[in-house]
Amino acid sequence: MGVMRLGYVHVRVTDLDEARGHYGDTLGMGVAAETQGRIYFKAWDEYDHHSVVLEEGGVGLVKLGYKVARSEDLDVFEKRSQQFGCTVERMSEGDNLAVGDGLRITLPSEHTLELYHEIEYVGTETGAFNPDPEPRHPRGVSVPHIDHALVTTEDPALLERYFAECLDFRPAERLVTDASNPELLGSWMFCGNSPHDIAFVNGPNGKLHHFAYHLQDWSKLLRAGDLFAMDDVPVDIGPTRHGITRGTTIYFFDPAGNRNEVFAGGYTTYEDFPTITWTADQLTKGIFYIGREMKDTFLSALT
Amino acid sequence: MGVMRLGYVHVRVTDLDEARGHYGDTLGMGVAAETQGRIYFKAWDEYDHHSVVLEEGGVGLVKLGYKVARSEDLDVFEKRSQQFGCTVERMSEGDNLAVGDGLRITLPSEHTLELYHEIEYVGTETGAFNPDPEPRHPRGVSVPHIDHALVTTEDPALLERYFAECLDFRPAERLVTDASNPELLGSWMFCGNSPHDIAFVNGPNGKLHHFAYHLQDWSKLLRAGDLFAMDDVPVDIGPTRHGITRGTTIYFFDPAGNRNEVFAGGYTTYEDFPTITWTADQLTKGIFYIGREMKDTFLSALT
Amino acid sequence: MGVMRLGYVHVRVTDLDEARGHYGDTLGMGVAAETQGRIYFKAWDEYDHHSVVLEEGGVGLVKLGYKVARSEDLDVFEKRSQQFGCTVERMSEGDNLAVGDGLRITLPSEHTLELYHEIEYVGTETGAFNPDPEPRHPRGVSVPHIDHALVTTEDPALLERYFAECLDFRPAERLVTDASNPELLGSWMFCGNSPHDIAFVNGPNGKLHHFAYHLQDWSKLLRAGDLFAMDDVPVDIGPTRHGITRGTTIYFFDPAGNRNEVFAGGYTTYEDFPTITWTADQLTKGIFYIGREMKDTFLSALT
Amino acid sequence: MGVMRLGYVHVRVTDLDEARGHYGDTLGMGVAAETQGRIYFKAWDEYDHHSVVLEEGGVGLVKLGYKVARSEDLDVFEKRSQQFGCTVERMSEGDNLAVGDGLRITLPSEHTLELYHEIEYVGTETGAFNPDPEPRHPRGVSVPHIDHALVTTEDPALLERYFAECLDFRPAERLVTDASNPELLGSWMFCGNSPHDIAFVNGPNGKLHHFAYHLQDWSKLLRAGDLFAMDDVPVDIGPTRHGITRGTTIYFFDPAGNRNEVFAGGYTTYEDFPTITWTADQLTKGIFYIGREMKDTFLSALT
Repeated sequence: MGVMRLGYVHVRVTDLDEARGHYGDTLGMGVAAETQGRIYFKAWDEYDHHSVVLEEGGVGLVKLGYKVARSEDLDVFEKRSQQFGCTVERMSEGDNLAVGDGLRITLPSEHTLELYHEIEYVGTETGAFNPDPEPRHPRGVSVPHIDHALVTTEDPALLERYFAECLDFRPAERLVTDASNPELLGSWMFCGNSPHDIAFVNGPNGKLHHFAYHLQDWSKLLRAGDLFAMDDVPVDIGPTRHGITRGTTIYFFDPAGNRNEVFAGGYTTYEDFPTITWTADQLTKGIFYIGREMKDTFLSALT
Repeated sequence: MGVMRLGYVHVRVTDLDEARGHYGDTLGMGVAAETQGRIYFKAWDEYDHHSVVLEEGGVGLVKLGYKVARSEDLDVFEKRSQQFGCTVERMSEGDNLAVGDGLRITLPSEHTLELYHEIEYVGTETGAFNPDPEPRHPRGVSVPHIDHALVTTEDPALLERYFAECLDFRPAERLVTDASNPELLGSWMFCGNSPHDIAFVNGPNGKLHHFAYHLQDWSKLLRAGDLFAMDDVPVDIGPTRHGITRGTTIYFFDPAGNRNEVFAGGYTTYEDFPTITWTADQLTKGIFYIGREMKDTFLSALT
Repeated sequence: MGVMRLGYVHVRVTDLDEARGHYGDTLGMGVAAETQGRIYFKAWDEYDHHSVVLEEGGVGLVKLGYKVARSEDLDVFEKRSQQFGCTVERMSEGDNLAVGDGLRITLPSEHTLELYHEIEYVGTETGAFNPDPEPRHPRGVSVPHIDHALVTTEDPALLERYFAECLDFRPAERLVTDASNPELLGSWMFCGNSPHDIAFVNGPNGKLHHFAYHLQDWSKLLRAGDLFAMDDVPVDIGPTRHGITRGTTIYFFDPAGNRNEVFAGGYTTYEDFPTITWTADQLTKGIFYIGREMKDTFLSALT
Repeated sequence: MGVMRLGYVHVRVTDLDEARGHYGDTLGMGVAAETQGRIYFKAWDEYDHHSVVLEEGGVGLVKLGYKVARSEDLDVFEKRSQQFGCTVERMSEGDNLAVGDGLRITLPSEHTLELYHEIEYVGTETGAFNPDPEPRHPRGVSVPHIDHALVTTEDPALLERYFAECLDFRPAERLVTDASNPELLGSWMFCGNSPHDIAFVNGPNGKLHHFAYHLQDWSKLLRAGDLFAMDDVPVDIGPTRHGITRGTTIYFFDPAGNRNEVFAGGYTTYEDFPTITWTADQLTKGIFYIGREMKDTFLSALT
């Protein structure tokens, strides 16, 4: 019951063919469908129709889709979101290729969030009958599935309240100005057992900082990094460890400039997880635990 | 809402001091409390009071405790379990050290299952304020937390029905005789996002096959295996890969003969996870994917 | 100066096409040449013409080739070997495809050892000009290079003396009956900085126990094990750790029954390396450090 | 025969007690001896008396010691070095604690190089009798042994010629201005089977860029990085991959400002290794393969 996971990320890219090389050949996603000006990608361990939608023209986030466990959840979330003061539309089957009815919500941060329960089932590449643990012939990084997104908002406290009160998310970690007089600068929120299904930090409304792919472990990050060098993918930062979430990471850019992440590790959360607090003076350690150094582009490059 | 996780495992051991060496020095759990004839252990990344209870005298499983998200869940689970035909008692605060009210259910498989919501909060060893990702001074294997248990039952189909109907668990993987005329031989069930929070296979009622600790990744399994050799811990099987759950594993025994596992990896499940089917002819591949060979003790040694 | 490394392994296989699948598709070696009844394979990080020669008909070792640093070394090794009492022939350029002049020595253990200095240079797959650290498109296990061979001999002490006195090898580790009255049961000898370039244990003369491929690390062994399962390669033992050499390992068989190994890790040796002694009572720990259990086939299956 | 390895690094540090925390508690070396104003450290897998000498007062390299295989090598290297035009002194037993007779050579780059054959034998921490593969109780990063040093020189071509002609080193990789009209900017030279035992790049004479510790693999680098954060060790760059040598790396500083490296991986070299060429336009990829970005301090911070 409730939101299960980040189901899809829809972004704009300047050139579909370059993007196809990046998301297909380098990251190893498969093309699920292609329409005029759009490519729909699916990673090998995902069973739903697609998880990344690329739309030609510009750069930046169009919308995020989160899948809910039951159709009835949509009614609950619609009411709560309206009461919270958000603009909520009903979206119909077919508004998104292969996706059923749902809600389109304009978040307090001006991002578009879609909630849906139905999407065409395709199945993973290894199948559900005596399956192998991974593909015999991996493509590039061979990302198994998408993981989370991090966006920016002018009012982190308001957005945290929205996700908590309307969608039952909980904060795994919170970044505050200081311990004694805390103002919220960022929040990493979960709806399942991962450290974050959505995260946001202080910044302009409506912007994407990055969306992330899950990798199995630290050894896969090294291979990913090698492939980024071979394929001329610009790397922003990493490989390194996050203090926040404990995950290991490489940040990099698609050819249009949207930031991606490959992410491995991180702890397990539950409804009773004791929220972790980071103070702003430890921010660089929280983000880049090993090097403890910030890079300007990491804060400024948003799409 | 509902069951969150395996909270504690309570087993009998023949000698508390030997067991202290195993669970403390080798696995690296800390002693949370000690009473006449019992030791309560907690792993470094667990925030509740304890997760393993050792009771001197004999060998084998006393009971499993699962923590629920809300107190009200207990009422629901009590009713459903009674309607299912199980014997259910209310347990009181103090029946278990540091644990609050709850339910004590005799499963169709004759195992004792305790459900509870309240347990004394202690906090992890790394804390919740600008925390490090792991302890500075690890002890032995440094297991972060317990993960799941696998028990045996004369009637896997009945036990699966109990966990599904009464506790809202779902099967991630099912082992059946064959694809055309399937009889259920085992089920790996989850209540959160892991491949299994409880699992059971065909066998005598009331027995424990193993309980497992989570490790971060495959590289930690190698260090664990090395420590088992240094500390003379009998290893049953591993390191290897599971076909079922995709996890990587070493099985080993505590000094009393209870089987433990260190487990890393495995996929992420959700309410819409497509249940995987394994057929009996592929069982050895399902359990020991790399070697595809069964070992007699693995099937016969139960406590 | 002296012997540099194991350069090639020449074995018989019952069926060349099956073997091609194993050494080519699964292990990922490339075909360097093919003649009537023979396939010559090269691994991606090897720069010489080939490292594995398969000859159709039967099973078992035909010969081992070790490359020496200088042509003059051949004269020295010829004299020493003759003085030691070995049968030594001169082999001519062309006796072995792409290999120059050299020596063909019948070892005291009845194995055929070839020493040579010249072999056609081909280059690695990543090249020698601003190279990438590994292939962009790995095939199967993607073994970088062969590493060592282990053979059996009726007289380990004699064979050790041969390799020490004639070829300047040194023992990194020695297996003896017991510490007080040691009889040599096995020796792991090196000519460079690895734990072993040749090894031998007590057993019938002229037989091969296994030859090994180097892998980068423990994480690559997991992927290798997964591929062995996917490709139905029989696994003998592993993944596990060796006590002897400290390496990590999987043993498996080619379709003809020749045992192969993938090996990662191990320490660095030098001319002043203090030889390690293992006693027979610790043999299983020496070979399979984690599980400390012997498997009959491991001792009996020789080709 | 010839030079075997980097045996010791002798550096100045501003404060011995701070340095003790770094080399002892964080890196995990053991104190082999302590004299007025000096600490001698040994890593757990080294069998000679010490490998790092710290001398209080200032910062920077005092000298490098390389161990030769035989006493007679010293005579050869003395003559060749003199003929090359270097100042060579004989050093006596006791000039260096626990070290025997040897040579003290002033290199064309103004660094002091000591060659010696005898040094007190201590043995590794795991011993040479039925040994475990690693310490049961690791301290900090638990570095097994030192690996190489990188220094700067005004004339890389001259220094390369010295190491090749006088000490029989060979270049594994060479950095040149461009392919058509190559001027040597740096050389990575080996005397055994590793990618480099000494390396040097264009820069002021007499300076140290870093000296390195070997680690087992990429997974150990992550733990090292975590410990650097916990112990407030300044990290210069990493974890990342080198294009040159293929190794994986973290660069960091001791409290006095001497740069250290933890290094894992890298290929195997032999006397016939085909020298790899890097051109200056690919330098950042050669050094930091994944991020392909240079950091000013990396070039400028020398001691």
